[in-house]
Amino acid sequence: MNTHPKASWIAADWGTTNLRIWALDETGGILAHRSSEKGMGRLEKQDFESALIELIADLLKDSEVTPVIVCGMAGSRQGWAEAPYMTVPCAPPSIRNATGVDAADPRLDVRILPGIKQLTPPDVMRGEETQIAGFLADNQNYTGTLCLPGTHTKWVALQDGRIERFRTFMTGETFALLSKHSVLRHGLSADDLDSTAFAEAAERSFNAPEALTADLFGVRAAGLVADLGPAQASGRLSGLLIGAELAAVSRDFDLGNTALLGSDKIAGAYRSALTHLGHASRQLDAETITLKGLTLAYSFYEPEHS
Amino acid sequence: MNTHPKASWIAADWGTTNLRIWALDETGGILAHRSSEKGMGRLEKQDFESALIELIADLLKDSEVTPVIVCGMAGSRQGWAEAPYMTVPCAPPSIRNATGVDAADPRLDVRILPGIKQLTPPDVMRGEETQIAGFLADNQNYTGTLCLPGTHTKWVALQDGRIERFRTFMTGETFALLSKHSVLRHGLSADDLDSTAFAEAAERSFNAPEALTADLFGVRAAGLVADLGPAQASGRLSGLLIGAELAAVSRDFDLGNTALLGSDKIAGAYRSALTHLGHASRQLDAETITLKGLTLAYSFYEPEHS
Repeated sequence: MNTHPKASWIAADWGTTNLRIWALDETGGILAHRSSEKGMGRLEKQDFESALIELIADLLKDSEVTPVIVCGMAGSRQGWAEAPYMTVPCAPPSIRNATGVDAADPRLDVRILPGIKQLTPPDVMRGEETQIAGFLADNQNYTGTLCLPGTHTKWVALQDGRIERFRTFMTGETFALLSKHSVLRHGLSADDLDSTAFAEAAERSFNAPEALTADLFGVRAAGLVADLGPAQASGRLSGLLIGAELAAVSRDFDLGNTALLGSDKIAGAYRSALTHLGHASRQLDAETITLKGLTLAYSFYEPEHS
Repeated sequence: MNTHPKASWIAADWGTTNLRIWALDETGGILAHRSSEKGMGRLEKQDFESALIELIADLLKDSEVTPVIVCGMAGSRQGWAEAPYMTVPCAPPSIRNATGVDAADPRLDVRILPGIKQLTPPDVMRGEETQIAGFLADNQNYTGTLCLPGTHTKWVALQDGRIERFRTFMTGETFALLSKHSVLRHGLSADDLDSTAFAEAAERSFNAPEALTADLFGVRAAGLVADLGPAQASGRLSGLLIGAELAAVSRDFDLGNTALLGSDKIAGAYRSALTHLGHASRQLDAETITLKGLTLAYSFYEPEHS
């Protein structure tokens, strides 16, 4: 009775907290886009295959092999199968660098794209390298800065289409922890973020990042003794953290030519801070770019036993 | 049957997470020292009296009033009764500045010492002002820096025995949140903290505090790509945070003349970082100092209806 179209291949972005898949036909048309909360962080090695099948079973052809191209934390040592890091400077990985998985289900041919590491200073990425590949598909030989905002924001220096170096900032995670679990939570707004307070704090922190640790508790104290409202406090906290990040970034990356891969609230905050500091930036949709990177990898796919 | 000695007065340090009391005789001898987890953070206004009675009932004289001198968050707006802040610059509060509580139990005469606020930059303390008073009891007209290490470390500039200004740093809380809840937790040791890694990171961060936000994720990445061990990673994280704090502190406080009020692990970390940066400091026991401050307040106690 299940007569809906079957996938020519599956693209999968398998991160720590989520698994997102696209089912595609041979012309790149999206037949389905689904996600589950079975991220790498919740799975043991033997559970990955069933987590995937659960999400895509009805999209698989009965007696044919369907390629599944995966990026993200599923390729980490604690993931489904380790896809060893490439090392910068390098071009983004292609499917030639992918690791094949021994799946029990004969309908699956799973290939996991590797992440990238940097030795000095030590840094790693898994998943973002595929977004970078997707970005470069439309911007060949690009030279400039990419910002991939998120829980762990990555800043990437590209030179002639190669990844020269990158740096990860835990600003998003730090903001979430301080907002939800620290003493600051008492004075913050969960939803509203005052944009004036954000811009002022971002500028202050960009110009004097060494004051960050002194200013954090002030977000709470100003609520107690200087009538700082919750939306202002949230804006100030976000601005202090992003401003300090941008100060550190500006020492090693060209902020004057930045493309932001993200369209959510966090990406918007980075863009707003950059604008306030006098730097124009362009913004692209991260999901679109991820699919583009996975599609690029698939375009060089060859069956294993051909 | 309960024949053990009764208290002449009760000293209480009532913070957010704990209530600690000492029962004293008229010569200052300690009859009992107890604590409960009924900190301000877990109590509604109407629950404070019973939380106190629970801990001290057997120490109260049946038909006499026992003074209870309290410092800490019990005096906050969300506490038992608000003891309005004094404002710096000022001498530490004395019992004349305390707020009396209307206790239902006629055996209690409860006085809550006020906290201190600072308007520019906004800051607050509750409890530490009593430790400062205790420190000054032995160091009259002191000029120099006090550091009160903890979840929220306070740095205080004293001039001729008066509190000129102070600043709060959330370094302890930030370390705890990052260690327990962030991605860094995977690479850290719960118990061991490598002292060489700590000193190196503290020095690096002290000299380049603007790099802090860039260096945090590196603690995890160095575990993945550069064999940084858990004890080294914990030492590095602690050093990065404390070094950045000391950099900010050094702009406004004289690190060359610092007394540390604390004898626990956190205080030890501050002392070690200061030593590594070439600053001798002396270290005093915080509990002893707290009791000294409360005892000083009690020495000026007068019954309400005398």
